[in-house]
Amino acid sequence: MKVKTVSLAVVLSLISYNANAKEFVLTDTEKNIAKGNWSISNQDLGVNGNKFTIQNTVLKGGKQDGTELLTISSDDFTIKLIPTRGLGILSVVGDGVRMGWDSPVDEVVNPKYINLESRGGIGWLDGFNEMMVRCGFEWTGHAAQADGMMYTLHGRAQNTPVSKLIVDISDKTPHTITVKGLIKENTFKKSNLETWVSLSYVPGSKEFTVHDVVTNKSDYTRDYQIIYHSNFGTPILEEGAKFVAPVKEISPFNDYAKGGLNTWQTYLGPTKGFDEMVFNVYPFADTNGQTQVMVTNKAGDKAAGIAFNINQLPVLSLWKNTDTLKQGYVTGLEPGTSFAYPVTIEREQKRVRQLEPGQSTEFTLTYSLLSNKDAVTKYAEKIKAIQGEQQTKVVNEPMAKE
Amino acid sequence: MKVKTVSLAVVLSLISYNANAKEFVLTDTEKNIAKGNWSISNQDLGVNGNKFTIQNTVLKGGKQDGTELLTISSDDFTIKLIPTRGLGILSVVGDGVRMGWDSPVDEVVNPKYINLESRGGIGWLDGFNEMMVRCGFEWTGHAAQADGMMYTLHGRAQNTPVSKLIVDISDKTPHTITVKGLIKENTFKKSNLETWVSLSYVPGSKEFTVHDVVTNKSDYTRDYQIIYHSNFGTPILEEGAKFVAPVKEISPFNDYAKGGLNTWQTYLGPTKGFDEMVFNVYPFADTNGQTQVMVTNKAGDKAAGIAFNINQLPVLSLWKNTDTLKQGYVTGLEPGTSFAYPVTIEREQKRVRQLEPGQSTEFTLTYSLLSNKDAVTKYAEKIKAIQGEQQTKVVNEPMAKE
Amino acid sequence: MKVKTVSLAVVLSLISYNANAKEFVLTDTEKNIAKGNWSISNQDLGVNGNKFTIQNTVLKGGKQDGTELLTISSDDFTIKLIPTRGLGILSVVGDGVRMGWDSPVDEVVNPKYINLESRGGIGWLDGFNEMMVRCGFEWTGHAAQADGMMYTLHGRAQNTPVSKLIVDISDKTPHTITVKGLIKENTFKKSNLETWVSLSYVPGSKEFTVHDVVTNKSDYTRDYQIIYHSNFGTPILEEGAKFVAPVKEISPFNDYAKGGLNTWQTYLGPTKGFDEMVFNVYPFADTNGQTQVMVTNKAGDKAAGIAFNINQLPVLSLWKNTDTLKQGYVTGLEPGTSFAYPVTIEREQKRVRQLEPGQSTEFTLTYSLLSNKDAVTKYAEKIKAIQGEQQTKVVNEPMAKE
Repeated sequence: MKVKTVSLAVVLSLISYNANAKEFVLTDTEKNIAKGNWSISNQDLGVNGNKFTIQNTVLKGGKQDGTELLTISSDDFTIKLIPTRGLGILSVVGDGVRMGWDSPVDEVVNPKYINLESRGGIGWLDGFNEMMVRCGFEWTGHAAQADGMMYTLHGRAQNTPVSKLIVDISDKTPHTITVKGLIKENTFKKSNLETWVSLSYVPGSKEFTVHDVVTNKSDYTRDYQIIYHSNFGTPILEEGAKFVAPVKEISPFNDYAKGGLNTWQTYLGPTKGFDEMVFNVYPFADTNGQTQVMVTNKAGDKAAGIAFNINQLPVLSLWKNTDTLKQGYVTGLEPGTSFAYPVTIEREQKRVRQLEPGQSTEFTLTYSLLSNKDAVTKYAEKIKAIQGEQQTKVVNEPMAKE
Repeated sequence: MKVKTVSLAVVLSLISYNANAKEFVLTDTEKNIAKGNWSISNQDLGVNGNKFTIQNTVLKGGKQDGTELLTISSDDFTIKLIPTRGLGILSVVGDGVRMGWDSPVDEVVNPKYINLESRGGIGWLDGFNEMMVRCGFEWTGHAAQADGMMYTLHGRAQNTPVSKLIVDISDKTPHTITVKGLIKENTFKKSNLETWVSLSYVPGSKEFTVHDVVTNKSDYTRDYQIIYHSNFGTPILEEGAKFVAPVKEISPFNDYAKGGLNTWQTYLGPTKGFDEMVFNVYPFADTNGQTQVMVTNKAGDKAAGIAFNINQLPVLSLWKNTDTLKQGYVTGLEPGTSFAYPVTIEREQKRVRQLEPGQSTEFTLTYSLLSNKDAVTKYAEKIKAIQGEQQTKVVNEPMAKE
Repeated sequence: MKVKTVSLAVVLSLISYNANAKEFVLTDTEKNIAKGNWSISNQDLGVNGNKFTIQNTVLKGGKQDGTELLTISSDDFTIKLIPTRGLGILSVVGDGVRMGWDSPVDEVVNPKYINLESRGGIGWLDGFNEMMVRCGFEWTGHAAQADGMMYTLHGRAQNTPVSKLIVDISDKTPHTITVKGLIKENTFKKSNLETWVSLSYVPGSKEFTVHDVVTNKSDYTRDYQIIYHSNFGTPILEEGAKFVAPVKEISPFNDYAKGGLNTWQTYLGPTKGFDEMVFNVYPFADTNGQTQVMVTNKAGDKAAGIAFNINQLPVLSLWKNTDTLKQGYVTGLEPGTSFAYPVTIEREQKRVRQLEPGQSTEFTLTYSLLSNKDAVTKYAEKIKAIQGEQQTKVVNEPMAKE
C-alpha cells in the first residue's frame, strides 16, 4: 500500500479499524459510528487492477432526507445500494444497460416518512422503486389482517435502516468488494431476526452476488419468509421481451392471470389498463439445486439473469407489470421461499419456514448483467441445459384465492 | 448588482445557478441539494426599493427537529412558510395584526413524527397549527374507512416535505419574491399527483398570492380534491367579529350547526363547550368568477381577506371554532373544490374532480391583511358589489349526514 | 468558580443563560436551541466535592439515528437518560450492579422509526428496552380499540422527544444535578397535557429521584393515567430473587397469573415458555402515604428499590417476565395510578383520574441501587415496618377480563 496516495479520511479509518486494513466500518450502532458521506477508491488504497470507487452519500431534501446511498463504480458498471432501506439495490447500470426500473416513486424514501400500515397495509408502495427489494423476513406477501394485527405488504426489512454497514475490500487480486449490512427485525416478545445482508462485486465484472444470512436470535422457533423482489424495466423489458427459465410448473396467481397463461414466456409493451399479472413458478434445477432465470429483450442482446439454488429458494414469482411507462413498466423475477400470497395462505400451504432458536439460514443469488448477444445466448443455453428434456407443467387454476 | 455587498454564500449560490441570477434553489432532491439554513436580503442582492429578507431556518428539538421554516420579512410584514410541511403558511403578521392562530400544537411538527392514521385517521391534528393548510390533493375531508383503506383527515399534502424549494426574486422593480415548492404525492400504482405550490409577495405590500398547479403525472384519470384551510384567530377574531362574503347559499354542515345558522355572519367570543360549527357556503362571484371573502374584527379595522375564483374553487367551508383560547379560538375560511365531508360523501355528491393523464389544474388565491378601517371598508365594498341585489339562500338542512 | 478551568463551550453556555450560572439549556424548541453533543464536568465548573460528568450524545446509525442519550456519571454510578424518548431511563449502573435489563431491542430507537399503531397497537414494543418508561399520560395500559380510535399500548409519552431539556447543577454542596425535560402530548381538540419530567441525583450517592409534574393546559377536564414501568433484569433478577413489598392486597392480572399466585414473592430463573405473569398489588404505606418496594437477588446483597407515595400512585403492577435471557428476562415493579388493563377497563373500574383545566399533579419516586447486604437489609426492614402486623389479602380471581 502506498501511504502517499491515501487520504486523511482513509488513514483515520484505517487507524480506527486496523484489525483488517481493508475493512471500513461505515455504520455501527454499538460503537455509535455513522460516517455518512464517505468514499474510497482503488487509488486511495494503492491497489492495482480494475479501477473502482465506493462512495456513500447522505441524500437530502423531500422524503429522501437522511437516506444513505452507497455507490460502487467500476469500469462502466455502477451499483447503487441503499443502507437506509435494508441495503436494497436501487439500480445497476453497465454497458449502457440498466437493471432497474422507473417507479412513480422517484426519491429514495427514508423509512421515517413511511407508514407501512397506511392504505390498509400497503404503505410499502410509498417507497417501492428498487431493482431488488428484500420482502421479509418476519413475514412477506400481500397485506393481511390476522392474529389481531396487520401483516403489512412485504414485511419490514426494506424499510429498516441497517445497524451495521461494512465495506470490505479484499487484499488480493481481483480485490473483491463486499458491502455488508445488518438488518435487525427486533420487537420485544415478537421478533428477533437479525440478517446480515451482503453484496459482493469483483471490479471489472458484470455480475454480483447477494449473500444473506438470517439468524433467529431468540430462544423460540420463529417463522420466516423471503422473496427477492428483483425488478427490471427498460431497456431490457420491451414488447417481445422474454422470460427464460427452466420451469417445472407454472400457474396463475389469480383469476386475472389465467388470461395471460398462454403467453407467460413473452412480454407486452407498455399497455394501459394491464395492471399486473403474476405467475407462480417452480423452477427446475441441476443436481446441486442450482438454477437460473433471465429476462431478455426482444433482440436477445440485453438481459438480466439471476442464479440461485432451489434448496434455498424453491419458488419464483413472475410479476408482469407491463402497464404504462409512467405507471411503472416493470417485471419482477422473484425467487423466494414463498409466493406473494398473504402469510395466512402461505402458512396454510406450508411455505412458511421456521428457524429454531439460534439457527441461521442463508440465501445466495448471483445477478448478471448480460449486455450482448453472446452473453445472453450463453446464459440461455445454461437455462436450456437445466430444463433438458423435462416438460413444463402448466396448471390452469390458481393454487389459492386471496 | 454591487458585488461588494454580496455575501460569500450568495456568491456561491449565484455561481451554482447562474442561469437565473435571482433564482435560488434551496432544495432539489434530484440534484441532492438541501441548503438548510440560508438567507438573503435586498442588500445582499444590491437591489433598491423596499427592504426585504428571506431566511430559511432548520428548527431543532422536540417534534420540530429538522423542520424548515422560511421567513419572508419586509417593512412590518412577515410571512412564515414551512417547506417541510408542504410549504404551508404558519403565520403572517403586519401592522401589528396577525393572520394565524394559537393551536395547542405549538411546535412546527416534522411529518416524521406524525402518523396520519392515528386516533382513527386524524393524526393530522397532531401538527395542525397553520394559518393556511392545503387539505388534499389525492383526497381531503373527514377521515373515512373505505375501499379497504383509511382516508385520513385532510389528506397527505401538508405532511409532505417539498422535494424542490426555489426562491425567485424578480430582477425588476418591485422585485416580487416567489417561493415555490414541489409536493409529490407519489405511491406506486396509486398516486402520481405532483403539485407546484407557490407564494408570491411584493415587498412592502400587505397581500400575497398563492398559486398552485396540480398535475396528474400518471397515465390514468385520477381524482383530486383541495380545501385551502385558511385560519384566523386573535386579534381579528373576537366577539362580534364578522364573516363577510357574497353568499349564494349557506347550509349547516351537520345538525349541530343548525343551531348557529341564524348567526352565521357573526362570531362569538371564546366560548367553552362551543367546539366547532361548520357551514357549507356557495359564494357569488363576478362575471369572471372572481370573488372574495373576509373575516373582520368587531370594529372593522382589522381583517383578513381571501380572493379566489369560483371556477377553480366553487365552494367554501366556514369553520367557526370559537371555543376557548387555549382550545384553539379560530375560524377557517376555506375555499375548496370540496366541502369537508369524507371523500365517500363528496364522491356521491359529485364534488370530487378528476384530472386526465398529464392534465394540470391551477388555483390562485390572494390573501390580504387589512389593518385599518379604510382597507377593511374597501374590501367589504367589493364584496357587497359582488353580492349586489342577489339574495342569499339559507338552507336549513345539512346536505349530507356523516 | 475558577474561570480558567472552564471550556469555551461552557463559557458560551453561561453567557447565553447567565440568569442562573449553573443552568444549561440543551434543548428549547421555543428558542430553537438543541445543542446535541455536549458535556460538562465538575472540573469544568470548578466545583469541589464528588466528581461528576454530564454528557449528551447524539446517537447514529440504524434506528437510533438522531436519538439523544444523556449520561450522568459520578464515582462508580452512571445514569443513562433518553431525551428523545421522553427522558426515560435506559439504565443505571453502580458498584457493578445494573438496574436495567437486556431487551432484544438493543438500540435506543428514535420515535421517528416507531409506529405505535403497528401490530394492532403494540408498536411501543419496537422500542422497549428501558429501565424506566413512563406509560402515559393521556392513556396507558394494554392496547384497545375504543371511541373510534386505537389506544396504543402504554400511551405516547415515551415516544415523544422532549421539547425542553435543561441540566441544572446546584451551586451549593453537594451540587445536586437535576435533568429536566418537557413532554408535550398536544393534539388539537384532543390533548394538551404537558409534563415536566425530571431526575435529580446527588453526586456520589446511589439513589436518584424522579419528580414529574403533569399539567392539563387545556380548558377542559381531561383524563390522565400513569404507570412508572420500572424494569430490572440480571444481576438483581435471578432464580430465587425476591419481590419485597408491604402488600395490602394482591391478585392475578389474568387467569394465567393465577398459577403463580402462591409464589408471588419469589422469582424463577430464566424459564422458557414462561412468558409473563402480572399481579395487581395495592401496597400498604406509612401514615404519610409513603411506601417502598424492592426486588432483591437471592443472596440479598443486590437490589433495586423504589420509594413512592400511594396518594400519588396507589397501585403497583408486578410484572414477572422471567422468560429466557434472550427473550428479555426482566421484572417490572410498576407504581401507577392504573393497572395495565386497557383504558376501557380502567375507566369502568374508576382508576382513570382527571385533571381540571390548568390543574397539575405530581409524582415523586426515589430509586435506590442497593449493592451490599447491609443496604438491602435496611431497605427491607423499612418495608417490614410499613407492613407491620397487617395482613396481605390474596385475591384469587382477576379483577377484570381483557
